[in-house]
Amino acid sequence: MRKASIIVIGSEILRGLVQDTNSWWLAGKLTEMGFSVIRIIAVPDDEGEIAWALKSSLEVADVVVVTGGLGFTKDDITLSAAAKALGLRLVLSEDAVEMLKRKVKGEEVQYYIKAAHIPEGGKPLYNQVGISPGVYLEINGKDLFFLPGVPAEMTKMFEDRVKPLLEGRSRGYMARITITTDYTKESEVDSLVAQLREKHSDVYFKTHATVPVVLSVLVSSSSQKDLQVKLDRIIEELKKVIKIRDIKAE
Amino acid sequence: MRKASIIVIGSEILRGLVQDTNSWWLAGKLTEMGFSVIRIIAVPDDEGEIAWALKSSLEVADVVVVTGGLGFTKDDITLSAAAKALGLRLVLSEDAVEMLKRKVKGEEVQYYIKAAHIPEGGKPLYNQVGISPGVYLEINGKDLFFLPGVPAEMTKMFEDRVKPLLEGRSRGYMARITITTDYTKESEVDSLVAQLREKHSDVYFKTHATVPVVLSVLVSSSSQKDLQVKLDRIIEELKKVIKIRDIKAE
Repeated sequence: MRKASIIVIGSEILRGLVQDTNSWWLAGKLTEMGFSVIRIIAVPDDEGEIAWALKSSLEVADVVVVTGGLGFTKDDITLSAAAKALGLRLVLSEDAVEMLKRKVKGEEVQYYIKAAHIPEGGKPLYNQVGISPGVYLEINGKDLFFLPGVPAEMTKMFEDRVKPLLEGRSRGYMARITITTDYTKESEVDSLVAQLREKHSDVYFKTHATVPVVLSVLVSSSSQKDLQVKLDRIIEELKKVIKIRDIKAE
Repeated sequence: MRKASIIVIGSEILRGLVQDTNSWWLAGKLTEMGFSVIRIIAVPDDEGEIAWALKSSLEVADVVVVTGGLGFTKDDITLSAAAKALGLRLVLSEDAVEMLKRKVKGEEVQYYIKAAHIPEGGKPLYNQVGISPGVYLEINGKDLFFLPGVPAEMTKMFEDRVKPLLEGRSRGYMARITITTDYTKESEVDSLVAQLREKHSDVYFKTHATVPVVLSVLVSSSSQKDLQVKLDRIIEELKKVIKIRDIKAE
């Protein structure tokens, strides 16, 4: 499975002023697409911390998705910090300027022009909901995305621009089943599935402390065909060890 | 200001199955206590990733708060991975066993005994709400805390055990004011406070895209007395540049 890392940028997150919901949403999406998310890092609007987050992510992940700090106010330094960290020039992108012109008119474009300065070699991604474009950058064969921090802008850009670019690149397929069991004690379900967990080390079983206990199962595979076979087998084996009230497959 | 880092451990977070709310809560608390939170890192229940998160946090932060993976099930590997990463033995703590005995009886203690194995030199922290003790470890003059991942257990342990240990160690004081303005456009408020932001580089101004626009201001200082003076001055200066509907100080 190819690996992914998520970076959230914004001092407001680190100071506890705003709750980050982007990383959770992105983690679910990237997992669904067959990537293994191995790190989520949140750092403030600080050049050094942004550089550290980028470099340590690019060391281990094939795909890095960054959100936040793309705007035109003074503390939006994500793209300039990234360019510096990666040894790239920050250049005015004509395509990004065109994108701004679709959102704002006349002299207002100049007010937003900062958001059209992107790291050399990057491709701007159109922002359907907000103003600042996102950026896609291929760096040493790795895919690096910069998305806005506003959740409505980020999710729309991910669905419309990032997903099509990443489709098929995960080299993996994932299926998730959610099982409502007939038990009230989480530890009971946990010990009943212990043997399956041992046997299938590549399958992820997670009990949730709800009443009745819910069990999430994530099955991944390198081929779509094999995934279905694996999934069917796991469900069959699960039926033998726990009492199931309801199964939902996604 | 002394620096803090927060580490969240749990594959369920990275796979988007469970939303992490702990890091947000902890970020707010540590900020209130006068620490500068510079990193939040979430990693799966994986030895290598846990080691990386711990080492890279201890490199830059004075206080590191870790949550998750303290239990007795197979995937709870936080303490053993931490011991390995820090070059410490994992030992059975008699104090931790006593804590378990206050929570569970007779032979059941053996079932939970894994949670009483902690890194050498660590002090167990009593878990009022759940079973698994937390751990406090001083390492090279830095404060390292391991707290449970269940939010109700984590918050209670932080308030009762961590806060008293950290009180006074931040060498900083923080005050927060929340201002409801008389504007509806965030960018307008942002440009009105731009001059103050320039002038007071150590004060954090954050506009929120609400209607009317809300402005959060964080003022920090190394003395309680100086903090009040600074705060009064900032409020006075703010009153001159923006129309304020309501001010709340915390």
